[in-house]
Amino acid sequence: MPMPSMATTPDTAEPFDAWIARRGAQVEQALDRLLPPADTAPVRLHEAMRYAVLGGGKRVRPLLVYAAGEFAGAPQAALDAAACALECVHAYSLVHDDLPCMDDDVLRRGKPTVHVAFGEATAMLVGDALQALAFASTAAAADHGVAASAVVAMVARLGHAAGSLGMAGGQAIDLDAVGTTLEPAALRDMHQRKTGALLGASVALGAACGRSTEAERVLLERYAEAIGLAFQVVDDILDVVGDAAALGKTAGKDADHGKPTYVSVLGLEASRALADSLLRQAREAVTALGPRAVRLGDIAELIVTRHS
Amino acid sequence: MPMPSMATTPDTAEPFDAWIARRGAQVEQALDRLLPPADTAPVRLHEAMRYAVLGGGKRVRPLLVYAAGEFAGAPQAALDAAACALECVHAYSLVHDDLPCMDDDVLRRGKPTVHVAFGEATAMLVGDALQALAFASTAAAADHGVAASAVVAMVARLGHAAGSLGMAGGQAIDLDAVGTTLEPAALRDMHQRKTGALLGASVALGAACGRSTEAERVLLERYAEAIGLAFQVVDDILDVVGDAAALGKTAGKDADHGKPTYVSVLGLEASRALADSLLRQAREAVTALGPRAVRLGDIAELIVTRHS
Repeated sequence: MPMPSMATTPDTAEPFDAWIARRGAQVEQALDRLLPPADTAPVRLHEAMRYAVLGGGKRVRPLLVYAAGEFAGAPQAALDAAACALECVHAYSLVHDDLPCMDDDVLRRGKPTVHVAFGEATAMLVGDALQALAFASTAAAADHGVAASAVVAMVARLGHAAGSLGMAGGQAIDLDAVGTTLEPAALRDMHQRKTGALLGASVALGAACGRSTEAERVLLERYAEAIGLAFQVVDDILDVVGDAAALGKTAGKDADHGKPTYVSVLGLEASRALADSLLRQAREAVTALGPRAVRLGDIAELIVTRHS
Repeated sequence: MPMPSMATTPDTAEPFDAWIARRGAQVEQALDRLLPPADTAPVRLHEAMRYAVLGGGKRVRPLLVYAAGEFAGAPQAALDAAACALECVHAYSLVHDDLPCMDDDVLRRGKPTVHVAFGEATAMLVGDALQALAFASTAAAADHGVAASAVVAMVARLGHAAGSLGMAGGQAIDLDAVGTTLEPAALRDMHQRKTGALLGASVALGAACGRSTEAERVLLERYAEAIGLAFQVVDDILDVVGDAAALGKTAGKDADHGKPTYVSVLGLEASRALADSLLRQAREAVTALGPRAVRLGDIAELIVTRHS
């Protein structure tokens, strides 16, 4: 087994902006190494995969992996593998969501969507191949100092988070909900699957690359659940009050598509109050986790106060 | 860790037909347990996943998993997990292939395809969720007596076989090849990715659930490569000479779609000679592997002599 790369503990003197920039560059480089080069056959597929993944996005899931990994003292190369896995699943879900048979979107992160740029068939294969790559990348954490038993648990968690009881299931509920009204509990369930499951997996996989106690894992799950819901509530608020330039996508599209949102179900003010309440829950978990959880706290603040 | 279920060695007195029926029933039951019940939310997605996977198909990949697992003395429950994983990947690839943006097929195994029965958006999510389930099922082999390090290697192998350098990549090459002619070497490369990679993974994962030597694994790879190509050559022959009733799909569709096939590139007789030659290669590997490989030999014969 190769020597594990050096574990880091959080450098609390580093400004959060600088940390985000450093971690963003780190995952970008790791993704660039993971994705087959654009001149490797099949060339068009690999070009499209790189187009879908590289050079864009807020990288929220990788940031959560790194933040949880710093908490748990995990080796960097293993965190790179896990961060890439989460980002590949997220990117594949966006490519498939944008297809004409789903949301039929032509703009993503300010660029033409993958099926507009490369055709529908290639876009479908891009998503399929990215999901496979995500699991291969997860397995690679075992080459970088993570115990095989922990890696198996990471694969199981990612499989559950991405599958019919997680993200794909949330999408299916979302499809069925178009033009209907949902109770707040049903809306929460939909978003817990659609967005929360993968955000929770990001925290869990990052932590699993290092060491944590059972009590800490409970707090990490509580933190992840709060920020997962907060993320979606804020998304729904921004869908109403944001503008396309800042969002990089069409504002108001969810409401226009007749999809139930927190704003449509609870109203704007109650949605803002819910986001604040979830932020408080996340802060409480972070406080209980102690100073090594500083970046998890920073990310929670960012998720709720962002403007795009 | 639960007690591993009993490992079996091949019962050579059991007729191959009876073995196929027994193993087919075994994987059907395992898939039924693995797939969420049809009354679990999201109901429509789970109904469609079960429709796509249960009650049909030749189960070639699961049969290869069991045959290789018998060779390696692997525990049954672990083989069930691996067999389900391979069949879920295969089933997802069929669902996505049949979509209008790909082959646009309306009939599969004599039934309406998933997108005809459930709509395009649900069909896409069915495929996505089945791929996630495949990796979760692979991870579950660790609960049934397989070492975690072996399970990690299984995940990596399946990820590679399903991804852009394997099955999804083969599909992409296939897309680009429509209306063109391919050299025999390029055709072989396409099929090695599109079909061979997953058949090879079936043999490798089945063997990885038990014990084998490095020399045996080399022979297993050689066997898998031969039957992987033979499978596709025979498919192409049957596409020309078969009939829709026996195939459960439209005969001649590949040729009609302008796809290069072994028959279009080599001609019918040379294709038959190639299939025979590949069968001989598979038999040689099986002979070298010894009597525990009896079912691998039976499957090779079946692949080449089948009529549908």
